[in-house]
Amino acid sequence: MSSPLRKDLRQKVAQLVVVRASGHALDSQRKYPSWELSNSELKTLLEEGVGGVILHGGTVHEIKDRCNKLSTWSNQPILLCADVEEGVGQRFEGGSWMPPPMALGLRYLKNPKEALLLAQEYGKCIGAQARRCGLNWVLAPVCDVNSDPLNPVINMRAWGCNPNTVSALVCAFHRGLVSEGVLSCAKHFPGHGHTQVDSHLELPIVESDIARLEEIELIPFKALIEQGVNSVMSAHILFQAIDPTSLATFSEKILSGLLRDEIGFEGMVVTDALVMQAISHRYGSGEAAVMAFEAGADLILMPLEPVQAIDAIVEALLSGRIPFEKLEYSLERRNREMSKLNIISKNSIEEDYSFQIGEEFEQSKELSLVDNIIDISIETRNDSNFQYSPDLVNLIRIDDLLPCPYLSSSSPALRIPSQFGCKNVIYHPLGVSPWQDKPMEPLEIDRFNQGPFLLQLFVRGNPFRGNKDANEPWVEVVEQLQQKNILSGLVVYGSFYFWEKLLVVLKSSIPAAYSPGQMQAAQQKILDFLFKANKNQFTEKNNRVEFTN
Amino acid sequence: MSSPLRKDLRQKVAQLVVVRASGHALDSQRKYPSWELSNSELKTLLEEGVGGVILHGGTVHEIKDRCNKLSTWSNQPILLCADVEEGVGQRFEGGSWMPPPMALGLRYLKNPKEALLLAQEYGKCIGAQARRCGLNWVLAPVCDVNSDPLNPVINMRAWGCNPNTVSALVCAFHRGLVSEGVLSCAKHFPGHGHTQVDSHLELPIVESDIARLEEIELIPFKALIEQGVNSVMSAHILFQAIDPTSLATFSEKILSGLLRDEIGFEGMVVTDALVMQAISHRYGSGEAAVMAFEAGADLILMPLEPVQAIDAIVEALLSGRIPFEKLEYSLERRNREMSKLNIISKNSIEEDYSFQIGEEFEQSKELSLVDNIIDISIETRNDSNFQYSPDLVNLIRIDDLLPCPYLSSSSPALRIPSQFGCKNVIYHPLGVSPWQDKPMEPLEIDRFNQGPFLLQLFVRGNPFRGNKDANEPWVEVVEQLQQKNILSGLVVYGSFYFWEKLLVVLKSSIPAAYSPGQMQAAQQKILDFLFKANKNQFTEKNNRVEFTN
Repeated sequence: MSSPLRKDLRQKVAQLVVVRASGHALDSQRKYPSWELSNSELKTLLEEGVGGVILHGGTVHEIKDRCNKLSTWSNQPILLCADVEEGVGQRFEGGSWMPPPMALGLRYLKNPKEALLLAQEYGKCIGAQARRCGLNWVLAPVCDVNSDPLNPVINMRAWGCNPNTVSALVCAFHRGLVSEGVLSCAKHFPGHGHTQVDSHLELPIVESDIARLEEIELIPFKALIEQGVNSVMSAHILFQAIDPTSLATFSEKILSGLLRDEIGFEGMVVTDALVMQAISHRYGSGEAAVMAFEAGADLILMPLEPVQAIDAIVEALLSGRIPFEKLEYSLERRNREMSKLNIISKNSIEEDYSFQIGEEFEQSKELSLVDNIIDISIETRNDSNFQYSPDLVNLIRIDDLLPCPYLSSSSPALRIPSQFGCKNVIYHPLGVSPWQDKPMEPLEIDRFNQGPFLLQLFVRGNPFRGNKDANEPWVEVVEQLQQKNILSGLVVYGSFYFWEKLLVVLKSSIPAAYSPGQMQAAQQKILDFLFKANKNQFTEKNNRVEFTN
Repeated sequence: MSSPLRKDLRQKVAQLVVVRASGHALDSQRKYPSWELSNSELKTLLEEGVGGVILHGGTVHEIKDRCNKLSTWSNQPILLCADVEEGVGQRFEGGSWMPPPMALGLRYLKNPKEALLLAQEYGKCIGAQARRCGLNWVLAPVCDVNSDPLNPVINMRAWGCNPNTVSALVCAFHRGLVSEGVLSCAKHFPGHGHTQVDSHLELPIVESDIARLEEIELIPFKALIEQGVNSVMSAHILFQAIDPTSLATFSEKILSGLLRDEIGFEGMVVTDALVMQAISHRYGSGEAAVMAFEAGADLILMPLEPVQAIDAIVEALLSGRIPFEKLEYSLERRNREMSKLNIISKNSIEEDYSFQIGEEFEQSKELSLVDNIIDISIETRNDSNFQYSPDLVNLIRIDDLLPCPYLSSSSPALRIPSQFGCKNVIYHPLGVSPWQDKPMEPLEIDRFNQGPFLLQLFVRGNPFRGNKDANEPWVEVVEQLQQKNILSGLVVYGSFYFWEKLLVVLKSSIPAAYSPGQMQAAQQKILDFLFKANKNQFTEKNNRVEFTN
């Protein structure tokens, strides 16, 4: 094949590849340099026709400039996407960060009407802020039904624990999202809710047969496809009963057979990130990309080596392994969805682009939405029983340390107790162990000068953590501290399942609180609640120690 | 006095106040909201004539837009300053971050010629990058002679331990700095090197008489004043022998008598931050500002309540407590120094302003300067003796956790040992205690499954830490681990004094390394050095676990 023709073919294939970039302007600021391409690499790939970029990190203000810059490096409209399932602030500092979807899933059981309304506003907030930042494709909603409390990776990211709740809420979310002129993505097909394995770390294997899929997993996906969701993301999971040989991302039976032919989805099929270890530990970038494309994926997300991925698909086309029609169909779908982008954008694009340096990014209605969702999702008990003493140990458990997105030196979870003279201790999995070898008394209390304790536990299924968190004996710690009468209060931020597990053993008289959201606003509300009985001893100016030279 | 005249007077006084702002664009991004004014407050104050802003936090890219924005809110040229003593990267992500000045102070003793050259480049790098960001006033160099190894706040920030070293190096630094078109600041007058108390926390009291000041502390200041330093910052220290009643910032004897009349300094005298607790715990914002202005300060830095500070000075002028001439002189000095700014800028302003999004901020000559200073400042011993085993515990000690500027999940200090299968443990003062109650065996080893240990200790005098760090028994830990033959290696990042203290007990056969700089580049060099004997077992792709959804 002549090189101009090959070049043309390469450009077409490149359009179907979505590469990873840091949201920061400078190479030196990349947080994950082994995954995030340098600016020169990005420039070259975009000039060669790469059709999409997934962004991670930086501020809303940086990301806006970043998206403009990336677009100028390309000679075509490109997909600019991010995993902002819980708000633009989840990835880009300065945006709104909302409690996880499960908070509304739980609310739906009590007040479906309110939950549906909030889910739609939730989607609208993400869509509007994403577009304000220059993004045009939001990798949400998660359509997985979290049917397994021990699911380490979906968990609170899901919109509920049963198919009908999830269907209703993702449809409401989706209406709000697309009304703001961005593209949407239903993930992780055919369903990631029924596994105890994190595909970021290893390959989950699911026994579900097609009957169970039809009854549970597929329902939210079908509902969203009905509603015209723009893309569907494949799961890195092996569904033995359906395709014993290929995980969903590589399964023609699942992507072409089930999703296209049976369900009749006509939008873009995108793989989950190919760098994830369920894939990267087994296949090279080139082969993984070809297998996914062959199975029915249109877009290849985050191959470890984008150039290898492009070249391998080109070879597969030239060798006849993959028919050229397949390429044309995928390009057609990409163009069709991106053209919708232009149509839907027109409505509401104006007022938003006013976002300027020095102006606030979050609009007041967005701020009150977040506040409202935090309020209705918080549970509290027995504040009047809360007694602090100067020797109270404020033991905070976090899973993410460097950095910890929800905890800074001025976070309420640290600041408020220390303003009352309490001793702060932060435990994290990389920290010195607080455990002793006594199953019923796991916490070595003399490392904390005896307590009493206020426990603030930040625990939720976070990607890459696997089941590490589940193995910490907090249930036993609660029992241990209660027995010694040194549990002054208990707060859980994050996993509802974890909170429920602790409630089983928690004495009804102990002051306690739960928030699905881990953000500072939630901390503030909960600590105000606990300490309000003692407000009179509260002195704002006290030990306000902050940094300067 | 009629209100138009009062308004005019208020505007003049406001010019002498420097307020604190976050470098971030959005209020919601402020890291120290109790200190950092909101955008609306800033806008109002700048419109009312406030003459300067000190910035902290954000990226080089944000700070550039930030400075432009702040300037548009003012109807006059304003001072835009930052504490970037060790490089713009010390405060603003993306800039160069160099080893602390003491690194060159130590080098000077071996190779004065090289140290002087590097000190000048050091200043040039800061001046050029500060101006690239839109800053026009660099609050450096530190002129204190660190004559006390236990000094908790100056320490490695000083350019040396004796007056001649400091004089020579600050003069070289200053030549480089001002050649790039920014204003300079000699601090902390009359000298902060001879104290064991951190004025961020309490009031240091120094016995030094004028004789000792003349022989030691004043020498670098006089040298820089000779060289035309644009401003001098006062220390929040009580010099009993000179003025038993007022600390330097409030002392007419020191600011007017010593600095103006005797030494003959004609530039701007600026207070250290008035929010510092040596001051804020004793005086209100208004009274503190008046006392400093009355004593001879021209500029009032970071009053906790800027409006109170301005109003109080206005009242002091109207009441006759402070003569109006004093105001005119201070305004005159501010104008004179700022006019120099315009002159010196002209030379080298062009090439720099090319800095654009997506381009690198650090120029190659700056990158190699940093690299060079790191190289010459690192000390290493016995790499060939370093043996790692899979059960090696990589115990990292840090003082700053939320966030930790020099440690992220991908930092070499964590990444390289874990690539070899070592267990990472991070200890920080807010963490679970690793100590047991045995003075000669302070580390409770069974919390670390027995070791052996690689100790990586990040320790340096950091403001606000007081003497907390000095109290940790690391000398005893080194002896304890050596006795048990489970000390595989020792690394110190930061304080030279601390390193020297450990060397006294460290067996000469143990692999060890020291770097004054704590940045990732220094970690990389040191761990490459330690692990290079084992490079063959090194697998870059191994456990490279990074975040995505």
